[in-house]
Amino acid sequence: MIREIYLDNAATTRPLEELKEIYTAYAADAWQNPSALYACATRVQKQIDDAKGTLLRVFGGQGHKCFFTSCGSESANTVILRGAKQKKNMHYVCGGAEHPCVEESFKFLQNAGYGVTFVPTNKNGVVSPEAVANAVTEDTALVSIMHVNNETGAKNDIERIAALVKAKNPHAMFHSDGVQAFCKERLQNTSNIDYYTVSAHKLHAHKGTGAVFYKDHTPLKPYILGGGQENGLRSGTQNTLGILSFAAAAEYFETMVDPGHVHILKEIFLNECSNIPDVEVLSPENEADACAHIVNISVLGVNGETLLHTLEAAGVYISTGSACSSKKGKSRIAAALGLSQEEAAGAVRISFSPFNTEEEVRFAAREIEKNAAVLRKFMRK
Amino acid sequence: MIREIYLDNAATTRPLEELKEIYTAYAADAWQNPSALYACATRVQKQIDDAKGTLLRVFGGQGHKCFFTSCGSESANTVILRGAKQKKNMHYVCGGAEHPCVEESFKFLQNAGYGVTFVPTNKNGVVSPEAVANAVTEDTALVSIMHVNNETGAKNDIERIAALVKAKNPHAMFHSDGVQAFCKERLQNTSNIDYYTVSAHKLHAHKGTGAVFYKDHTPLKPYILGGGQENGLRSGTQNTLGILSFAAAAEYFETMVDPGHVHILKEIFLNECSNIPDVEVLSPENEADACAHIVNISVLGVNGETLLHTLEAAGVYISTGSACSSKKGKSRIAAALGLSQEEAAGAVRISFSPFNTEEEVRFAAREIEKNAAVLRKFMRK
Repeated sequence: MIREIYLDNAATTRPLEELKEIYTAYAADAWQNPSALYACATRVQKQIDDAKGTLLRVFGGQGHKCFFTSCGSESANTVILRGAKQKKNMHYVCGGAEHPCVEESFKFLQNAGYGVTFVPTNKNGVVSPEAVANAVTEDTALVSIMHVNNETGAKNDIERIAALVKAKNPHAMFHSDGVQAFCKERLQNTSNIDYYTVSAHKLHAHKGTGAVFYKDHTPLKPYILGGGQENGLRSGTQNTLGILSFAAAAEYFETMVDPGHVHILKEIFLNECSNIPDVEVLSPENEADACAHIVNISVLGVNGETLLHTLEAAGVYISTGSACSSKKGKSRIAAALGLSQEEAAGAVRISFSPFNTEEEVRFAAREIEKNAAVLRKFMRK
Repeated sequence: MIREIYLDNAATTRPLEELKEIYTAYAADAWQNPSALYACATRVQKQIDDAKGTLLRVFGGQGHKCFFTSCGSESANTVILRGAKQKKNMHYVCGGAEHPCVEESFKFLQNAGYGVTFVPTNKNGVVSPEAVANAVTEDTALVSIMHVNNETGAKNDIERIAALVKAKNPHAMFHSDGVQAFCKERLQNTSNIDYYTVSAHKLHAHKGTGAVFYKDHTPLKPYILGGGQENGLRSGTQNTLGILSFAAAAEYFETMVDPGHVHILKEIFLNECSNIPDVEVLSPENEADACAHIVNISVLGVNGETLLHTLEAAGVYISTGSACSSKKGKSRIAAALGLSQEEAAGAVRISFSPFNTEEEVRFAAREIEKNAAVLRKFMRK
């Protein structure tokens, strides 16, 4: 049996060992409906409220509250489609290389007749704060700029962007999709961030839970309608297991994870890659513009999907882009970044977790080198 | 320590012991993103597809497909808000005592300017098929009648209702909220049911997973927008653990559960209750109109919530109505059923699971009798 090296942590992550205990406790004594009136159920509601407190602390909330959803996509949909006060001539501003759950929500608003300005990113996926501010008008209801780009690992300075947005139009709501950033990139000042949306399964917790952090004064309305759970903001019986696991994972990142480790993994990987001929780094070069855990490279002269499968045969798992768009091809983001056809064809994403080792990353880089050389021979024949 | 008798299975259920194995298998080897391109991820997608097959078989699908959501509420919202072809003068028909996730969706459409006819139920929550058919017009886009009422256990003849709706207007879509019925009430003919929505956690699986069964020709569009998972009908990374547990629970109900057992529990309970003075059964008397697992009684002269807490002290867990509306009071359903103030005040819901025993049910009935007598003394002082 070959060893398996999982380097697709931006797609999803292996659940923490620690979550088994939460499962056992949930199945034994926290499965009751948190809305029921007897004490063993109200205890579950208390656990859910405590989980909110943990997540808001890790986020660094300043006057924020939290409600749980089923995923990052639902969180972003809720904020974009229900997070602005309804008025005529509403206008929206959105980043040019956002996750589909954000982009599709704005396209829905566009189809409903609202104006949406998509602010282009640079070639690495970074959005200019000034360009965002320039796009804001007095009619702008909501601005959405992702914190970390899921394809390139570009890190946007959302604190600065939010401040510029508010300076231009204090009534515009500011949202950031924090799915790839939460627990990995720390914010100093969240006071201008009205909405921040996150997902559990990127943090070694389970699929099926997301959250919205929101400031108290926002005009937010619920997207999922029904029994009025989550203080009326999200109906549906809460996914207690997913929620408690999410908070446990956030706490794990807060207390057990050395963020420096993933930085070292990235450095080693990029260093090894610099020895491979014709490899272009698509992620931002400047450290301030890039997260540590996502690297996108283009192996020129090679088809990324073929490379993915040859690496798979060697036990190394990477992706050609976000899993969400894997079945649609990667044309959307390649176009947004302005990649050449060759750059786009050879692009692969490698994404690290605190559990990856230096040796795994070296092995993966060597396998990329080896397989690229073989594939290029075939391509050039 | 007192014994605990859980009789609030319509609110939620204890996870099956069998699901521990699924958790272990998921955490070890089925946590990968089902949209990723390598084999260990496509295997997860295959497991999800198999789960759909299991659920559709248990449902008795006739040309139906399935996609997963995060809960019954999201399922119903999706169907009601995205399941009809957009046209002018659209009209909708809805049952008079539906779950809030259905009712609130129709109120949303009403606020958006569409016509909605609410068809009143009888005093036990049963909807007349003829009354539904009478409400259907040539502009009716969608009709929604729940299969089993979550408050009274009333069972609607949705096969007949769907047939009458289609006879009146073949273009009207028919939806039934099957959350309380799925795996408990069997359907012979599902061919006229365009949409049937279900939830895992009422079946001893986990909170956080629902599904929509839909006929292939429907005009359904996605409600959660994004990466296009679930064949474009529901974005967001699938909750694999929840999905596999849901299918396992449905299979458990199919193969291991004797539906006769819950019938006997209900009979015993009602028989015991008939000996308690001034108890009125709010559930339908006629067996054809009632499911076996939900009974609603009014203990006249007693406050239901007080009774709930005195029973809790004896280790017996029941509810005063659905957990979703427990915090809003029960005025909505009491009004829909036309209950008197005294009937509404004394109403409590007892809901059984295949794991409850005859002895538990007898004990609960005796506790109701005992506590009602004590409480009535206080009330009459």
